Amino acid sequence: MPDPLRLGIAGLGTVGAGVARIVAAHPDLIAARAGRPVTIAAVSARTRGKDRGVDLSAYPWEDDPVALARRNDVDVLVELMGGEDGPALAAVEAALAAGKDVVTANKALLAHHGQRLAETAETAGAAIRFEAAVAGGIPVVKALTEGLAGNRVTRVMGVMNGTCNYILTRMETAGLPYEEVFAEADALGYLEADPQLDVGGIDAGHKLSLLAAIAFGTKVSFGAVELEGIGRIAIEDIRQAADMGYRIKLLGVAQMTGRGLEQRMSPCLVPADSPLGQLQGGTNMVVIEGDSVGQIVLRGPGAGQGPTASAVMADVIDLARGIRVPVFGRPAASLADPVPAKAAAPASYYLRMTLMDKPGALAKVATVLGEAGVSIDRMRQYGHAEADAAPVLIVTHKTMREALDHAIRGFAATGVVVGQPVALRIEDV
Amino acid sequence: MPDPLRLGIAGLGTVGAGVARIVAAHPDLIAARAGRPVTIAAVSARTRGKDRGVDLSAYPWEDDPVALARRNDVDVLVELMGGEDGPALAAVEAALAAGKDVVTANKALLAHHGQRLAETAETAGAAIRFEAAVAGGIPVVKALTEGLAGNRVTRVMGVMNGTCNYILTRMETAGLPYEEVFAEADALGYLEADPQLDVGGIDAGHKLSLLAAIAFGTKVSFGAVELEGIGRIAIEDIRQAADMGYRIKLLGVAQMTGRGLEQRMSPCLVPADSPLGQLQGGTNMVVIEGDSVGQIVLRGPGAGQGPTASAVMADVIDLARGIRVPVFGRPAASLADPVPAKAAAPASYYLRMTLMDKPGALAKVATVLGEAGVSIDRMRQYGHAEADAAPVLIVTHKTMREALDHAIRGFAATGVVVGQPVALRIEDV
Repeated sequence: MPDPLRLGIAGLGTVGAGVARIVAAHPDLIAARAGRPVTIAAVSARTRGKDRGVDLSAYPWEDDPVALARRNDVDVLVELMGGEDGPALAAVEAALAAGKDVVTANKALLAHHGQRLAETAETAGAAIRFEAAVAGGIPVVKALTEGLAGNRVTRVMGVMNGTCNYILTRMETAGLPYEEVFAEADALGYLEADPQLDVGGIDAGHKLSLLAAIAFGTKVSFGAVELEGIGRIAIEDIRQAADMGYRIKLLGVAQMTGRGLEQRMSPCLVPADSPLGQLQGGTNMVVIEGDSVGQIVLRGPGAGQGPTASAVMADVIDLARGIRVPVFGRPAASLADPVPAKAAAPASYYLRMTLMDKPGALAKVATVLGEAGVSIDRMRQYGHAEADAAPVLIVTHKTMREALDHAIRGFAATGVVVGQPVALRIEDV
Repeated sequence: MPDPLRLGIAGLGTVGAGVARIVAAHPDLIAARAGRPVTIAAVSARTRGKDRGVDLSAYPWEDDPVALARRNDVDVLVELMGGEDGPALAAVEAALAAGKDVVTANKALLAHHGQRLAETAETAGAAIRFEAAVAGGIPVVKALTEGLAGNRVTRVMGVMNGTCNYILTRMETAGLPYEEVFAEADALGYLEADPQLDVGGIDAGHKLSLLAAIAFGTKVSFGAVELEGIGRIAIEDIRQAADMGYRIKLLGVAQMTGRGLEQRMSPCLVPADSPLGQLQGGTNMVVIEGDSVGQIVLRGPGAGQGPTASAVMADVIDLARGIRVPVFGRPAASLADPVPAKAAAPASYYLRMTLMDKPGALAKVATVLGEAGVSIDRMRQYGHAEADAAPVLIVTHKTMREALDHAIRGFAATGVVVGQPVALRIEDV
């Protein structure tokens, strides 16, 4: 039997414990598939004594993840601490400096430092693998980097934050307002310490930026992801969308257009009977479109101990098998500086606003839209409790977002629009 | 730039022409991803002159695919001829004998000779890759072999014959009988020369046997796949199933149970609102369940030039990158002889039969079922045109298929059952 591949696991939260659990549960299966045993050489975490539901007492302990990364008996650093800087970054840098491979679930780290780390790794002849960083147990990094490598990718879309999809689904099924479901999710421990990472779209945006780099051969550019969270979605929007055959999803879209690279993470309407529209609860989905393959849809659990550890182990077994692929699918030095698209591709938009109940109010709004070049597909005024204001719903024909925003700014001067309209993109999926 | 990887393409039908098209369309993209150029060294097919929609005149021609496989300037044989024996087998054997890698889309070849060819390849230090053999453009072989390698796989399911799914979908949406839709599909060129390959479940059974080998670490055992085609499905079955919230799919299921390895390809009822139930038309879907990951669903085009060529190119680029994985995910010599399960796991069954319109007829049928140990969940007698016979529908509680078959044999003695009942498994998905 060839030499084992020896892991140093830094971070023993849910995922770290899950990896230890799989290594302990399936040694023969893993060795048969990997062609060599996979063992744990040492572990590291903030607190040593804690009960993690799996026996780690046999593994040497390091208080310092950097020391773990440098141990002579560690071949691969498995970084499961999280955080875009601090000890996670230090440990990864230490491993790469020693020419060691890294497996990580850390999307924030790679979204912020991916290009530099990839260059460091490739110079050192080391690998960075991050299947677990995107869409949990779904092998989407592999599908995109390897399984669809013969395609010019045209678009990547995904629902990649289970918490947001849980919130939107629960709002629809229970008929509860956002604030209430948010509080529920918080009480259930579904939210990150900083909930904006979830509901602000940041976490999902990190993931999208990694997929975009692979798909389009560009440097990771999280800063260019247009981010919009789900906090402004009202139960009314969900109901109105459903009524027209749509569901609202926090949808990530990356596409290369004639205007440059578009990366958006925002609440969008998608057809309720599409695979994305049918996705309920915490499940994730990634849709990849390529010039030869057409459309591939991948669906599965986006978080949790088992699924995330499954993704980590896929990377580990790849490394044990000797599989080497550049971090983002082509040499890091050859990744292009993306030209961010100044404007999103045209789309239909859903627009909900409140109008004062005055004669001619609708006509004024329609005029402003028309002057901005936005044409109306459907318009509906619906039942309301307040006597002096009426909710109005508009679906536009395909238009540039800029034109729509121009119109929305123009509504103020009409004196008939109450508050701020909600505008949501209707994505063709 | 390192040396190119030089392909010899044997078979220039739809898929072969598609591969040539991608190689010609994306040389820079492929070289960037593969780390070296991919070129076509020579091609071979039965007829030379034919217009294949892509210019092949620059490539050296071989009449004999074996000679192609042996050419010194060919690194990888891309076998796209099809057929379980004959020239495809001879060319693959010639390539492996010369220590050359093989990429193939030929499920029949591997279903019948997979174990022997894998042993030959691994002894010769050569690879056999077959992403395109299963579910067209969906990177399912890679997902199972690599992406989920950390899992003990518990079940693999799939709708992997687009023609059958097209027929069943069209029967439902157009309300047409099987024979009529079959004739339509034939006229559209959707059927294999021997239509039993499609509607008899053989083609999909080939694919299932390959996935089962990877999933469970067993030798390919296509002979042990229980095959049942869609020829007996009546429009009534589709309607009745829909009425109860199900759809009928030609579903492949491979699972390892205490009783051994189950491999079934048969028409099953699945919940209409499940991903499998929602799959319409020619699209394919594979569902993989593992002990850590839970359930992963992969969906995409199962056939056609672009998707199948995309899968071939993924294998080619993997080889160019130097990725080497044993043919079925672990060394061929270590694959176990599967113990086929003598009986399928218990399930609920859908049972449709015609009863003579006599008092006590239903009771007689119910008694036979009860005596066989089959208990009834739902029973329904529905509207009919004939005065002296009534269609009856029964859904059983979970039972062994053997007990149900015993009951069905017992129906003859009741003197009230007309013709042969239709029994379809209801799969938990």
